[in-house]
Amino acid sequence: MSGLYIGLVHYPIYNKHREIITTALTNYDIHDIARSATTYGVQKYFIIHPVPAQRELATEIMAHWQTGFGSTYNPDRKDAFQGLSLVETWQDAVASITEETGSPPKIITTDARVYPNTITYREMRQKLQETKESYLLLFGTGYGMTEEMMQQFDYILEPIYGAGRYNHLCVRAAAAIMLDRLLGEAWWS
Amino acid sequence: MSGLYIGLVHYPIYNKHREIITTALTNYDIHDIARSATTYGVQKYFIIHPVPAQRELATEIMAHWQTGFGSTYNPDRKDAFQGLSLVETWQDAVASITEETGSPPKIITTDARVYPNTITYREMRQKLQETKESYLLLFGTGYGMTEEMMQQFDYILEPIYGAGRYNHLCVRAAAAIMLDRLLGEAWWS
Repeated sequence: MSGLYIGLVHYPIYNKHREIITTALTNYDIHDIARSATTYGVQKYFIIHPVPAQRELATEIMAHWQTGFGSTYNPDRKDAFQGLSLVETWQDAVASITEETGSPPKIITTDARVYPNTITYREMRQKLQETKESYLLLFGTGYGMTEEMMQQFDYILEPIYGAGRYNHLCVRAAAAIMLDRLLGEAWWS
Repeated sequence: MSGLYIGLVHYPIYNKHREIITTALTNYDIHDIARSATTYGVQKYFIIHPVPAQRELATEIMAHWQTGFGSTYNPDRKDAFQGLSLVETWQDAVASITEETGSPPKIITTDARVYPNTITYREMRQKLQETKESYLLLFGTGYGMTEEMMQQFDYILEPIYGAGRYNHLCVRAAAAIMLDRLLGEAWWS
């Protein structure tokens, strides 16, 4: 197990017109990212949503796989959901980690712009290997987290670049790639 | 652009009882993998399905984003679908590449078992950088492609290992990670 926690943020999020909105929960964001997180030994996957009815929906989806028909049909899903936690705000995720570990996590996210606290994947991977500190990596939905929110974070990871001009990975793919870079085996060496 | 093509196989596939089945098309397999493929400069993404009604469904989903309401609402999706091709069998994908490039591609897939032609990500990445040959990387759905099919392929990539015992990435996450390892920037150096 690594010292890494991850969270998926649904508010405050920009829409395409740069207005601040709450995004809807996506079934595949729950499943896909939970499976990636469990595969890479992430401590906990927080689904962060301010709307009670949306958290309730997530609970029902998880219950299907944890105790309902899905738990016997596909037990792998059940295991993937054991590290999943539903919270209202990202501050609640921080509080939960602080309670668990005794100290607040460093907060990381990713952005296309370069900041004074921008960090490379290589540096972040090394930090995760060498320190006992905990880290919370937050992923945005929609058109990303607000600038006000991002300014409160400790590290900004570089975006993932592909080969060309097009650079629109879905959050599920971006999360998988980031976990592979930060926690995966050193396949290149 | 790389010399890499990818394909998502829906038949012949094992179910959990090791019976040979045709899997249903998943909307998110179309979207997520198309966006990852376009980001990493994959030549073409083949969706391989033997059932005409399922290929028709994929065509309709794509049309929504390519010419329908979605094309103006979210033009990024339109670009992602430009490299997408619907075919009936994996042999059709091979024939299409052969027609396009003048010679048949080498075929690659991934499997948990070790074969005489098992290859590392590092070796495969080097091949893609150094040769002008084309390669077709096939992903299975369900519980994977049949052994008979896999025996006809040129290279078998090692599976992606995480930190622990749990190893159940969804195909969308596995595809994203594999493209990052094979075609992504050398972020570790």
